[in-house]
Amino acid sequence: MDSIPYKALTPETVATRLGDIAAVRAHAGPPESWKVVEVGDGNLNLVFIVTGAQGQVIVKQALPYVRLVGESWPLPLNRSFFEYHALIRQAARAPGSVPEVYHHDEAQALVVMEFLADHVILRQSLMAGTRHPGLGAFLGRFCAQTLFRGSDLGMDTAERKRDLALFAGNIELCDITENLVFTDPYFAAEMNRHTPALDPVVASLRADRDLKVAAQHLKAAFANNAEALLHGDLHTGSVMVSGDRARVIDPEFATYGPMGFDVGMLIANFLMAALALPGHLDDRAERDSYRDWVLQTATEMWEHFSAEFTRLWRTERRGILYAASLFEDQGDGLGAEQARLDRLAAIWRDALGFCGVEMHRRILGLAHIAEYDQIEDEALRATCEARGLVRGRALVIGRGSIRDMAEVTELARHIMERDYL
Amino acid sequence: MDSIPYKALTPETVATRLGDIAAVRAHAGPPESWKVVEVGDGNLNLVFIVTGAQGQVIVKQALPYVRLVGESWPLPLNRSFFEYHALIRQAARAPGSVPEVYHHDEAQALVVMEFLADHVILRQSLMAGTRHPGLGAFLGRFCAQTLFRGSDLGMDTAERKRDLALFAGNIELCDITENLVFTDPYFAAEMNRHTPALDPVVASLRADRDLKVAAQHLKAAFANNAEALLHGDLHTGSVMVSGDRARVIDPEFATYGPMGFDVGMLIANFLMAALALPGHLDDRAERDSYRDWVLQTATEMWEHFSAEFTRLWRTERRGILYAASLFEDQGDGLGAEQARLDRLAAIWRDALGFCGVEMHRRILGLAHIAEYDQIEDEALRATCEARGLVRGRALVIGRGSIRDMAEVTELARHIMERDYL
Repeated sequence: MDSIPYKALTPETVATRLGDIAAVRAHAGPPESWKVVEVGDGNLNLVFIVTGAQGQVIVKQALPYVRLVGESWPLPLNRSFFEYHALIRQAARAPGSVPEVYHHDEAQALVVMEFLADHVILRQSLMAGTRHPGLGAFLGRFCAQTLFRGSDLGMDTAERKRDLALFAGNIELCDITENLVFTDPYFAAEMNRHTPALDPVVASLRADRDLKVAAQHLKAAFANNAEALLHGDLHTGSVMVSGDRARVIDPEFATYGPMGFDVGMLIANFLMAALALPGHLDDRAERDSYRDWVLQTATEMWEHFSAEFTRLWRTERRGILYAASLFEDQGDGLGAEQARLDRLAAIWRDALGFCGVEMHRRILGLAHIAEYDQIEDEALRATCEARGLVRGRALVIGRGSIRDMAEVTELARHIMERDYL
Repeated sequence: MDSIPYKALTPETVATRLGDIAAVRAHAGPPESWKVVEVGDGNLNLVFIVTGAQGQVIVKQALPYVRLVGESWPLPLNRSFFEYHALIRQAARAPGSVPEVYHHDEAQALVVMEFLADHVILRQSLMAGTRHPGLGAFLGRFCAQTLFRGSDLGMDTAERKRDLALFAGNIELCDITENLVFTDPYFAAEMNRHTPALDPVVASLRADRDLKVAAQHLKAAFANNAEALLHGDLHTGSVMVSGDRARVIDPEFATYGPMGFDVGMLIANFLMAALALPGHLDDRAERDSYRDWVLQTATEMWEHFSAEFTRLWRTERRGILYAASLFEDQGDGLGAEQARLDRLAAIWRDALGFCGVEMHRRILGLAHIAEYDQIEDEALRATCEARGLVRGRALVIGRGSIRDMAEVTELARHIMERDYL
């Protein structure tokens, strides 16, 4: 199949085109037994569920354009190659945290992978008010393990440089992040949209010099500071959950960047889920209680990130940075601890900044989130979104001052009681 | 010749092996007329001067090992490839600042380039007490033009990412910098050497937790923060001068890294040249006067860097960072100026840190500098080197506090009057 030119799959052609692949048959059974449905609801790709006599698999295939926009916005097929390479690295660095890959075909831009039975997208679950025990711990460990082990703290540096060169090819998807996250929200760019009632708040943000400068400093860090292999799009639509189980999916935006990017995007999406709750849970007591769970989950995410990063720093620091030869081997373990605290503080500061711009772009940019979009009462939606906008600014500008998640969640509760329109 | 396996040149084989290359004949004339001498006095390579009927050319060929150490330390030939690619980029970004390249042969790991008649290595000239009008301006402009135009401030970002991938292959030379500059000087690494009388100062530096942590933060910035294509080894041995003319040579350590690295290494080498003057100029008045010229040159270098960076920021900011669409196009030119001052402040802070570690590694590490090594009076040498060590620490630790070159040079004068042994 590698020699056949790229052709988009349809439910009708999946069995013919993938039926001979042993790794797929091993998980789905003989192709005669397959039932295929297309379920892609994301912005970019085709996603098929293949159900056969032996079980189910997911077939994800890139399209040569942005599905959300159409053929007028071409997007290269090689994002499937980068997704595959990110998935196998994440599986090695954080075992059990991502779907198992069964097959990759670079020319057809497809990955066949584990079907996650009974799982739903976390974003949907957060709108429904469902609790997932251990979610914060899972996400914190995922970030710590993939980021530490995907950096010069844990990797052989020659391997990291070869990998940096490989992922530097993910140009067009980085370009989407660079423009849609860091620049377009801060001026009236063509593809932007926002709820009309937000106009005064939007005007004030776009006239906010300090905010624009800070967002561009964050963009420079994202584009240049290749600290670790990032997931690159780690929001609550890239997490699947089922009860107390969870997996991270869709790393096609993978790139080397600052560790705080993945962490900050996750925090942002929990904060927005909390801020949008008035549109989804009518009962005040239930809403407040669920809001507390969401904020607590974000807090646990950071705490477990920090704890696992610390554990890895003490046990797996075998890269070129902060070498034990300078610290532990000289009887100066305290020096390594001092450096670790500096690094965690820098990741935290970056994360708050990225968190703030993520909140802005989800309300002002091209790619919105369901939590806001599905609030049909436009006045209520605007009220919730305005809180997200002022919240985002407070995080970007305050990223050097806000010390911990307690301060972040306290500010969230403050903002949720107020109206900024 | 590309199909022939690599073979080191000798003066006897240069005419036979390069005589057919039109670009070389055009500059040196027919090979029958060539006289060839080997003049390499650096740490790594063969360098031949070819003198023919038409003129002179330089042939620089990499050896498969570190010349300074011998065959026991292998080093890949591809550094010639990176030197070539750096030279042609520098020539485009800072026209006239580097030798013109006439020919590159990747398999033979050689570059044939312009011979700089009557030029000497700046480091030699600084020991001799020679003044070079305009040197600071030349170096400052070189840094600003190569760094700005070699970054996401000035480049097309897809081109920058492809170039990042290309230079990520310069693994072994980056490895030398990463280890020899940032780590080895701070513990008793095998290849280190220092003047024995420095022992107490060296012990105190290597027990200095804050210094070691800061040096590792700087290493992390060097290894990960790919802001711009650096020269990568921009000391006064990589600059050739003749009166008021100058050229920058030897960019084989080129890599994407933080802008402050090139700038800081240059400042360090001027400071060390000044600190070593008691070993080279006996006359006190002459020495003080020349010291002032050296410090003034470093000051002018930074001032011209800053002025040229500002000019380019205002006229050539066409990359993805700090886009005019957010600032000038919104009538907010002041926002762009505010961002520029932030960026210059960050480059300055980084530069002071890199300056400090460069001073340490030149006194404690493997690769020393002639200014110190050629002081035969060992006690005087130790006195001068000790000043360099305390100076280096003051810069690394003070990089967030020292505001400008006036404070740097004032501190240099303070230190030169004292004895730290």
